[in-house]
Amino acid sequence: MLANTFDQSIQNRIDQKTKPLGALGKLEDIAFQLAKIRSLSLGHLATSIDVSNPHVIVFAGDHGVAERGVSIAPSAVTQQMVMNFLAGGAAINCFCRANAIAFNVVDCGMLEPVPDSSGTLVLSRLGCGTDDFSLHPAMTLEQSTQGIEAGRNIVASKIKSSANILMFGEMGIGNTSSASALLCAITELPVAQSVGLGTGINAEQLALKLALVQQGVDRVHSKSVMEILSELGGFEIVHMVGGFLEAAKRRVPVLVDGFIVSVAALIAAKLEPSVEDVLLFSHTSQEAAHRYVLEQFNAKPLLDLSLRLGEGTGAALAYPLIKCAAEFYNSMASFESAGVTV
Amino acid sequence: MLANTFDQSIQNRIDQKTKPLGALGKLEDIAFQLAKIRSLSLGHLATSIDVSNPHVIVFAGDHGVAERGVSIAPSAVTQQMVMNFLAGGAAINCFCRANAIAFNVVDCGMLEPVPDSSGTLVLSRLGCGTDDFSLHPAMTLEQSTQGIEAGRNIVASKIKSSANILMFGEMGIGNTSSASALLCAITELPVAQSVGLGTGINAEQLALKLALVQQGVDRVHSKSVMEILSELGGFEIVHMVGGFLEAAKRRVPVLVDGFIVSVAALIAAKLEPSVEDVLLFSHTSQEAAHRYVLEQFNAKPLLDLSLRLGEGTGAALAYPLIKCAAEFYNSMASFESAGVTV
Repeated sequence: MLANTFDQSIQNRIDQKTKPLGALGKLEDIAFQLAKIRSLSLGHLATSIDVSNPHVIVFAGDHGVAERGVSIAPSAVTQQMVMNFLAGGAAINCFCRANAIAFNVVDCGMLEPVPDSSGTLVLSRLGCGTDDFSLHPAMTLEQSTQGIEAGRNIVASKIKSSANILMFGEMGIGNTSSASALLCAITELPVAQSVGLGTGINAEQLALKLALVQQGVDRVHSKSVMEILSELGGFEIVHMVGGFLEAAKRRVPVLVDGFIVSVAALIAAKLEPSVEDVLLFSHTSQEAAHRYVLEQFNAKPLLDLSLRLGEGTGAALAYPLIKCAAEFYNSMASFESAGVTV
Repeated sequence: MLANTFDQSIQNRIDQKTKPLGALGKLEDIAFQLAKIRSLSLGHLATSIDVSNPHVIVFAGDHGVAERGVSIAPSAVTQQMVMNFLAGGAAINCFCRANAIAFNVVDCGMLEPVPDSSGTLVLSRLGCGTDDFSLHPAMTLEQSTQGIEAGRNIVASKIKSSANILMFGEMGIGNTSSASALLCAITELPVAQSVGLGTGINAEQLALKLALVQQGVDRVHSKSVMEILSELGGFEIVHMVGGFLEAAKRRVPVLVDGFIVSVAALIAAKLEPSVEDVLLFSHTSQEAAHRYVLEQFNAKPLLDLSLRLGEGTGAALAYPLIKCAAEFYNSMASFESAGVTV
């Protein structure tokens, strides 16, 4: 059966629901995409979608460039926030609790490891923070390859233990700088349009951030995507790239969070175009360059709540909309079954 | 304690959470408003917000003007859709199930009553459909007064049986015509800007709808809000007006759905300005005049999903965001409690 045959069958199914054509707006697009992912996986039209086991994985890592003062907070805050995640006190914990979403944190290479008694932490350390990408490669090609493999394995293990929709979050002081540099290096975006205020830096810090990102970008001209990722990436970012690749291979949808996660998704899609098929977009963040990344995917995210927090919070907030899209696809009556006059 | 003292205490509480200032965007505004409603109710600063018992009430009624052909569907569809609600097959049922929201339907005066074995239906019939408002008063002042009282009583009873956040939905073929007429009559909006495509009418129907709405509006010039409501309203609309008044009196938040519900809210706020304090706005609908109603409240709704369905669907979809706002206000760690460097 051809892919476009599914398209028509899925659209017919949605159009026969007891509502005016298209009246559920973006939710219909989500239902369509989820049904298509599932149909391609089954090899026949999916009459139901299952997103009942959502899982947030927050990838954490430190960045050498943070020592230069490009963030509102020092690198120590990465570790403090991870401790907060493990204690259940952060925004992402609140949203996972409210929406019944499973939660893990991965230490991808913070400056120092943290203890954990909650069972929430996964250790996958590629080092003690990256090198300063403005001066040196952030990591070796071996490290980035290892990180991608580790990200794949973590996602594979969550899917095996029943996760059927994934959300990635990130924590890493300095990682908007890394994401901005990556974005400029893999697209045509000028640095000035890629660098933003992060979680709220001042004008002086912004000027420094611009200069350091430019230095990094200038160094990687005409390199391959994997080389660029190694030169400018973060340990949490390479893990996410691997996570996206594995989710695509297994045809499990990923609800994409904000700027940094979206850049990781874009890199994964450059490595393997089928990644795009499993991506749902949760929100438009306040980080200006996020809109540009979304345009690369031709994405129209569900939410626009002026968020600028990261952690996977935008994705966790959008998840109930995905659940509602699945529920209407699965169990909403048709005009015929409900006896409603068309 | 003065109201503005609460403002500062609530804002401080939000600002001390482990996130950059303002990083949760619109969710912070929601948390602020919910905490203020609760604080005013308690007479001291609320340290927690409870929105754990959400309730959707869909008010249904028929409209005499529908016989003129201003909708995509005949009046019979009101009844058919109410049967669909009672059987659990409509979009609003799907979203209530997905988000664990209690659900009732009120027959405010459909053309004919419907049987119910589910216990979901509340009978509050003001008649067998309204009169055609383009020619005659839609209902008497006695009927509208009775409808407001009935709406108050229904909401009071839900609150007594533990509902702590309400969502109103509506079903009534022809009710965008009624809502448009009401909106023009109580504001300065010209009819041409108030009348839209409803759930999807054609150009000819639109021209007719414009003419009939104009006829109705011309008849009520310089009348009181209650007179206008009786002349141009619907049985479901007067019930909702009563519902808003009661929720405001009891300081229970109402998550406002689309165009028709928002017009009912605006009328309630004209009758009793404190209504505005308990209103949260869920989404911007595709019905063009909805934006104008939202501007009257200076409201910035949470969602913009291109919905045009009614039934309370936009509110039910937005409810999880309210739950997340409450959860972060209640249980997110402060910088101090989490040991995070400010």
